[in-house]
Amino acid sequence: MSRIPLGNNVIPPMPVALVGALVDGTPNFMTVGWLTRVNYQPPMLAVALNKQHHTPKGIVENGTFSACFPNVAMEQITDYCGVVSGRKADKSGLFDLFYGETETAPMIADCPLNIECKLVQTVELPTNNLYIGEIVAGYSEERFMTNGKPDFKKIDPLLLTMPDNTYWSFGDKVGKAWKDGVTLKKEKE
Amino acid sequence: MSRIPLGNNVIPPMPVALVGALVDGTPNFMTVGWLTRVNYQPPMLAVALNKQHHTPKGIVENGTFSACFPNVAMEQITDYCGVVSGRKADKSGLFDLFYGETETAPMIADCPLNIECKLVQTVELPTNNLYIGEIVAGYSEERFMTNGKPDFKKIDPLLLTMPDNTYWSFGDKVGKAWKDGVTLKKEKE
Repeated sequence: MSRIPLGNNVIPPMPVALVGALVDGTPNFMTVGWLTRVNYQPPMLAVALNKQHHTPKGIVENGTFSACFPNVAMEQITDYCGVVSGRKADKSGLFDLFYGETETAPMIADCPLNIECKLVQTVELPTNNLYIGEIVAGYSEERFMTNGKPDFKKIDPLLLTMPDNTYWSFGDKVGKAWKDGVTLKKEKE
Repeated sequence: MSRIPLGNNVIPPMPVALVGALVDGTPNFMTVGWLTRVNYQPPMLAVALNKQHHTPKGIVENGTFSACFPNVAMEQITDYCGVVSGRKADKSGLFDLFYGETETAPMIADCPLNIECKLVQTVELPTNNLYIGEIVAGYSEERFMTNGKPDFKKIDPLLLTMPDNTYWSFGDKVGKAWKDGVTLKKEKE
């Protein structure tokens, strides 16, 4: 076993989202891998965006943003939204859009999972800002759900890894959380 | 198409990490899905932990923590670390451990990808604290790399989704980031 140092610019596996905001009244979307839930109650989601991007302007303007989760079939258009800036191209016509309770966080009808947030805190970091939003509501469709819950096999979300810059699909179910560990706990007792 | 509101407790797909810290001198690990990169330069990683947990005590004590990424073969022991608190069970003997430059962030030799961090900021949220760490170094092994880079097919990381509480493997390569979108951009020009 030979341990190899990777330097410090290491990036964990990432879920892929299109983060949406109204910038000067135009719906804009950028491809993001740096996002996570950050608070349990009230539910909060945080996205880290480079300060140079166009989308943050809209997040600050309206105090709202969305996280729209594309599926594998949307890989190319998703990557396009990460390659082309809203400063140079109008991305509002790429998708069928809808709005929820916030009324200003554009969401994507084609995405099997959409979340709209109300900005509650901005953490300024050296090159990025971390936008923390309280989740107002999530949206899916019956065809992506099983027994009333989002079914991630049907949702078929995209993953991203770096530095190999590769998009991935989800693979197989490996086990059950808060269950397989309980079995092991009983064995150890 | 019938859009279905999911309420506000929606959780995106998550990478799974074992977050490590020395708590009162004892290496402890907890299973975490709420983590992401948050800053480009210097590289920073953030983990959101419920304030009730045992691990945050060690993060604050030492100002360091690790994010150790288990593979699919480690699913049961990973779930065990999420089910059993370090207050009730000594988890330090579960893994072969090693330390890096921080000297106080315990890492797991069996994990194909390990990251050690120095705590730089704590963001207090209602039920969780967000610990922002500057990445000091990442570690892997030759057998998990291709052409000098981490190879996520070999790393075979775990994913987690909720509320179905399911662990997943990675599936297939779907496409190339910052490349497939460029092809589409050229088509649109």
